[in-house]
Amino acid sequence: MTKPSANRRQFLQKAAFGSAFAGTFSLPVWAAQDIPGLPESMQKPGENFTNYGQPSTHEQQVIRWVSANPAAPGNGVSWTPLHDLQGTITPNGLHYERHHNGVPQIDPNQHLLLIDGLVDKPLSFDVASLLRYPMISRICFIECGGNSNSGWRRNPIQSKVGYAHGLVSSAEWTGIPLKLLLQEAGIKTDAKWVIAEGADGAALNISIPLEKLLDDALLALYQNGERLRPENGYPMRLVLPGWEGILNVKWLRQLRLTQTPAMSRDETSQYTELQADGKARQFTFIMEAKSLITSPSLGMVLPDNPGIYQISGLAWSGRGKIARVEISADGGESWLDAELHGPILDCSFTRFSLPWHWQGDYAVLQSRATDETGYVQPTREALVANRGRHGFFHYNAIVSWEITEEGDINHVYGI
Amino acid sequence: MTKPSANRRQFLQKAAFGSAFAGTFSLPVWAAQDIPGLPESMQKPGENFTNYGQPSTHEQQVIRWVSANPAAPGNGVSWTPLHDLQGTITPNGLHYERHHNGVPQIDPNQHLLLIDGLVDKPLSFDVASLLRYPMISRICFIECGGNSNSGWRRNPIQSKVGYAHGLVSSAEWTGIPLKLLLQEAGIKTDAKWVIAEGADGAALNISIPLEKLLDDALLALYQNGERLRPENGYPMRLVLPGWEGILNVKWLRQLRLTQTPAMSRDETSQYTELQADGKARQFTFIMEAKSLITSPSLGMVLPDNPGIYQISGLAWSGRGKIARVEISADGGESWLDAELHGPILDCSFTRFSLPWHWQGDYAVLQSRATDETGYVQPTREALVANRGRHGFFHYNAIVSWEITEEGDINHVYGI
Repeated sequence: MTKPSANRRQFLQKAAFGSAFAGTFSLPVWAAQDIPGLPESMQKPGENFTNYGQPSTHEQQVIRWVSANPAAPGNGVSWTPLHDLQGTITPNGLHYERHHNGVPQIDPNQHLLLIDGLVDKPLSFDVASLLRYPMISRICFIECGGNSNSGWRRNPIQSKVGYAHGLVSSAEWTGIPLKLLLQEAGIKTDAKWVIAEGADGAALNISIPLEKLLDDALLALYQNGERLRPENGYPMRLVLPGWEGILNVKWLRQLRLTQTPAMSRDETSQYTELQADGKARQFTFIMEAKSLITSPSLGMVLPDNPGIYQISGLAWSGRGKIARVEISADGGESWLDAELHGPILDCSFTRFSLPWHWQGDYAVLQSRATDETGYVQPTREALVANRGRHGFFHYNAIVSWEITEEGDINHVYGI
Repeated sequence: MTKPSANRRQFLQKAAFGSAFAGTFSLPVWAAQDIPGLPESMQKPGENFTNYGQPSTHEQQVIRWVSANPAAPGNGVSWTPLHDLQGTITPNGLHYERHHNGVPQIDPNQHLLLIDGLVDKPLSFDVASLLRYPMISRICFIECGGNSNSGWRRNPIQSKVGYAHGLVSSAEWTGIPLKLLLQEAGIKTDAKWVIAEGADGAALNISIPLEKLLDDALLALYQNGERLRPENGYPMRLVLPGWEGILNVKWLRQLRLTQTPAMSRDETSQYTELQADGKARQFTFIMEAKSLITSPSLGMVLPDNPGIYQISGLAWSGRGKIARVEISADGGESWLDAELHGPILDCSFTRFSLPWHWQGDYAVLQSRATDETGYVQPTREALVANRGRHGFFHYNAIVSWEITEEGDINHVYGI
């Protein structure tokens, strides 16, 4: 590996980065006289209207990458192609999936939600009744606790950014504040936990502190305006802003109020983090601040040497708003603040950007997020020192992209 | 038509509406012991992962309603089903369409954007080059100038809200500030207008004041995170926040800077508004403030009499933020402020809501938007008095839903 040269630090001077909208680009353009005649698309009528649109056939490579168990194909994940996306909303067709036993096809007219356990009056709700409750919307991310877990491996994997870090997506979720439904059932004073169960073939169940459900949890019925997609819990799911994906139970059928957690499979043998001392972290609900440079990133090539490139990426925190994202081109020796694109919302993707004048020499690009609590995204070295290498879940270290002198991009663990 | 009774005005007392989240609902619920056994979906594995997801088969009625010319099926519209949606984002598959000669299928590798006319240096850009420019995102609505134009008719049409008012949709658009590209070409001092042309079979062209393109216009390449859909201009379109839909030219291929407008078909014989005195309004770019109650609305029935219903709807203004939405249940005699759901953004859908305790008597529900400039959405009577009945475009009057004593809902022109 070539060590970055000392003068490369000059990349990080304000002047070298330039203003985001300086308009000082020297990209290849065609001379006007090179333009071909009237394009074919103008010489005939176009295609007809459609009741429900689909992406262009020229974008068929923009897919969720499916990684499932061949022996149990409903157990696995599909990754959001973050490297192909821009902005902050994930279109519904590309929202990541994590299923334990496939996607149940549920008739909403047959589905009921039961609230029972330590309540004054057990209640069950059909979908038609729930659609009449007051609803609110919020744009937030949902991230699988296992996202980015290849980072625990000894050697960096060479996957595109979405296919290593794309178990996180963002949508506008609309639904009923859980608090309303729980209060209608009447919460007994000794209730401390809620066991949520999904109506899938895995009968997935997991324990959630009652306090979170009374705070900002939603019973979501809509996703980006339309009813939930089947793979996102149709006809209803929990949305717990900022908390680990598995707690956002899909196909929700039951909330049982209890004094203690269920100690279910997915909060004991799974979704806990084995530490170096042999003990495991459990009930690690909150997804800590994280950021990723989505462009340039692995799988892309920098065509112009030297050239101007727009560094762009995503940052998010389960503890609230993103306060700052810094960029380094020298593997973390020096940093410059990226521009944050608003609106900056709690527990939501925040897009950041910074123009970068690549001078053609070796570089290591990194981004580092700070959230409004002051928490700073750790280096991989610090994360591993703190947690060991067998944690499997909740990996949020800084990601490093090596830029070779040829303009190729590799995943590295820092310089 | 039954005249609303005097005591119905009491609906509008704060206390009668109640707090939005009071939890005082008496909806039909099932007793816990009525719950059937383990649902079928839990007794077998679910379906497999998919590369690109689709809505539930139980939501197949949620479609864009196509209304096209049988003799020229590429000329017409498809309406966003606002009555079936919640929140503020329109999913890409349901974004409204207005095409003049169908949807061209464009190979992005063959597409070029030319900037010429009164510029120092004509430039043309291929898609790959444009994808390297700095981008910003903004959530905003796009509304066809002809949206809601059935309101000009003598009698109110009995269509669902989306199929009368759904030529408006909202998305997060991501693209390049037009200013950057124009400045790169170099704007001559006598340039005042820009003629934009699309690469469709209609060769749609229209004139836009240069000032707007230098202000907040985008060359949009992404829609809700993914590349534009073909029917929304793939591979690129203009997005002019708050301005009439037709100006947001799809499949954009050329921007020609000029001193004067082109006086093209779609700014002379169409997309102008004939007034009572025989003169026409032209270049009416901005879509004025408007609101709609989407629920309850025509096609729905109020099942409980009396009962509590959540009034929910959308408001937007091409002049900036929505400042206020008021609700009337007595056809405009008295009003109460609705709750506005944030984030409230410029030129964006703002969802409003208000719980309503329907006491079973005749009512006329209305919503009235005020934007941050102080502009108040007019009554139909005032709009017609001002503009006549042959304007065809830019109809933004208050919409009235009549609630019969049976709980049926009809479209009326006020009480």
